[in-house]
Amino acid sequence: MSPLKNPAVRFAQKPASGLLEASTFAIVDAPMPDIEEGELLVRLIYISIDAGSRAQLDDKTDYPIKAQIGKVLGSSGAVAQVVASQHPAWAAGDYVATTHTRWQKYQRLRPNSELLLRVDPQTGPLAMHLGTLGMVGFTAYVGIFEIGKPQAGETVLISAAAGATGSLAGQFARIAGARVVGIAGGPAKCEFVKNTLGFDDCIDYRAGDLDAQIQAACPNGVDVYYENVGGDIQRAALAAMNLFGRVVLCGQIGQYSGAGAVPGPNLMGAIVKRLTLRGFLANDHMNLHPQFLRDVSEWYRQGKVRHDATITEGFDNIHEAINSLTQGKNIGKQLCQVDAEVLS
Amino acid sequence: MSPLKNPAVRFAQKPASGLLEASTFAIVDAPMPDIEEGELLVRLIYISIDAGSRAQLDDKTDYPIKAQIGKVLGSSGAVAQVVASQHPAWAAGDYVATTHTRWQKYQRLRPNSELLLRVDPQTGPLAMHLGTLGMVGFTAYVGIFEIGKPQAGETVLISAAAGATGSLAGQFARIAGARVVGIAGGPAKCEFVKNTLGFDDCIDYRAGDLDAQIQAACPNGVDVYYENVGGDIQRAALAAMNLFGRVVLCGQIGQYSGAGAVPGPNLMGAIVKRLTLRGFLANDHMNLHPQFLRDVSEWYRQGKVRHDATITEGFDNIHEAINSLTQGKNIGKQLCQVDAEVLS
Repeated sequence: MSPLKNPAVRFAQKPASGLLEASTFAIVDAPMPDIEEGELLVRLIYISIDAGSRAQLDDKTDYPIKAQIGKVLGSSGAVAQVVASQHPAWAAGDYVATTHTRWQKYQRLRPNSELLLRVDPQTGPLAMHLGTLGMVGFTAYVGIFEIGKPQAGETVLISAAAGATGSLAGQFARIAGARVVGIAGGPAKCEFVKNTLGFDDCIDYRAGDLDAQIQAACPNGVDVYYENVGGDIQRAALAAMNLFGRVVLCGQIGQYSGAGAVPGPNLMGAIVKRLTLRGFLANDHMNLHPQFLRDVSEWYRQGKVRHDATITEGFDNIHEAINSLTQGKNIGKQLCQVDAEVLS
Repeated sequence: MSPLKNPAVRFAQKPASGLLEASTFAIVDAPMPDIEEGELLVRLIYISIDAGSRAQLDDKTDYPIKAQIGKVLGSSGAVAQVVASQHPAWAAGDYVATTHTRWQKYQRLRPNSELLLRVDPQTGPLAMHLGTLGMVGFTAYVGIFEIGKPQAGETVLISAAAGATGSLAGQFARIAGARVVGIAGGPAKCEFVKNTLGFDDCIDYRAGDLDAQIQAACPNGVDVYYENVGGDIQRAALAAMNLFGRVVLCGQIGQYSGAGAVPGPNLMGAIVKRLTLRGFLANDHMNLHPQFLRDVSEWYRQGKVRHDATITEGFDNIHEAINSLTQGKNIGKQLCQVDAEVLS
């Protein structure tokens, strides 16, 4: 997909605005890595595009990683295939999911010092291991079952409901027996959230009066709000919370892109309503990961959870893949495909 | 203290700005109540002035009570003395603490349907039953021991540290073994917080660069932030939180006074740091009240906790008592004294 032997994405210049241009990055030809005893040479197939892919490019956000000009970039996981192995547990042809990757087609992995998960291509699409069965799925699982803990009959409101985490969080909340209402942008996404993902209702935040729409869709108020966006949607959702409601602070995708942090909600209402707002990162809850894999693969087989992805082709278009996410154009997990699933 | 026989405070007109004028209220002569079987006639001595005293006068806040023009006002507790009793458990001369009161000198109480606490005047100053041993003390107790849960050696940061709740929350956090840092306005209050209340340190928010001051006073970061104020102090405190920190949302006194809710903090940092922000009202935790009374009266006898109060004299000056609180002029619990402790 590239004339280069080993294409890699280098950080060329800081973005001038929220939306990225191709000139943010330079696609360079990296040296082919040599591998030693205990190492794998892999070729990347899919890389995960997530909020951190954009946030690392800015100095202004609270995001803990700051990318450096001139360096090859990276982000969270990838699905790759082993090209050559000097590790006894892995063979050429095996598929592997990583939880962190450089944006470089061929690279070395070290199974003894990195968290690598074996991918069985028979269990479903390869890309699912960056979505429903990957860290994004695990994040939604922790957010619903460990942080928000909706009870049967409670109302769960989910922002960015057509996005990677939100779409799964809503499906998990339905499995917990809750009434699930999504918030998404535009009729097509809302239709997808209701009719494909099976949410009970979906609010189009572009269709005007958000407060009135939430009231109509959540006649019993909101018990759990799964927060992916920040901004005015956050304000409106907090205003609709019931006493003792829980706010799952998972992400604020709208907050990574642009000129620094905007103000958030006045927290007075959180006192009067005795709300708990809790930020989390799934990595702190790895003790739940085996149970997650068992539960979700079973639910997937039973048709209770889906895997949806928006795939942008090629490192040359990685800026478009990131813009797709920050502009909310993706449906399901946003990926960038770097190479073919199967080499012909 | 008033030429009227039974002075009462009526809501005369909505305040035009945050600060109250005498014209907000009209002091009227209410009819003397008759009492029936099972009732008490009491005279108020001290009434509690708290955030709700001000918040009820505005339509714009989230505060659940909205006062009505022309009606006699009320607020949280009072200490009173029984003048006449038709209830077998109470006698004329007994002192009583209520958890809610009308702002009217003589009034009826119904022991069988109201929460009344007997006050032994030998245990300490009468006013203490609206402070350290009253709902404000209970609020601080719940906030520290049930919500924030500081561990020995952790750092606890307390805003409005010279105020009623903050001063007690800090003393309780010291008892829990934490390093306790206050935030207060002006050198006199900071001196009081450090040298009288025994906090480890106190930051003067009027003395400039709040972030740098917090960093200097909390070299290991902040594990528990006890929130009483909102606004820029809240922003700076959240920025100083450690991973897995807890934010005790107790009050936002700065937010009740003036033109509606101001924006709050961007919650992005709460995700990265995995913070828990939890609003609470002490009334939801009455199961802890007996233990609170035992613990705190014992600590008071041992000299480990103090009771401090700022007392404004007379219903005529109740607007000044409320302004004292909203402007942060009070040290310890803000009260309004309506009548003498002992009738001569």
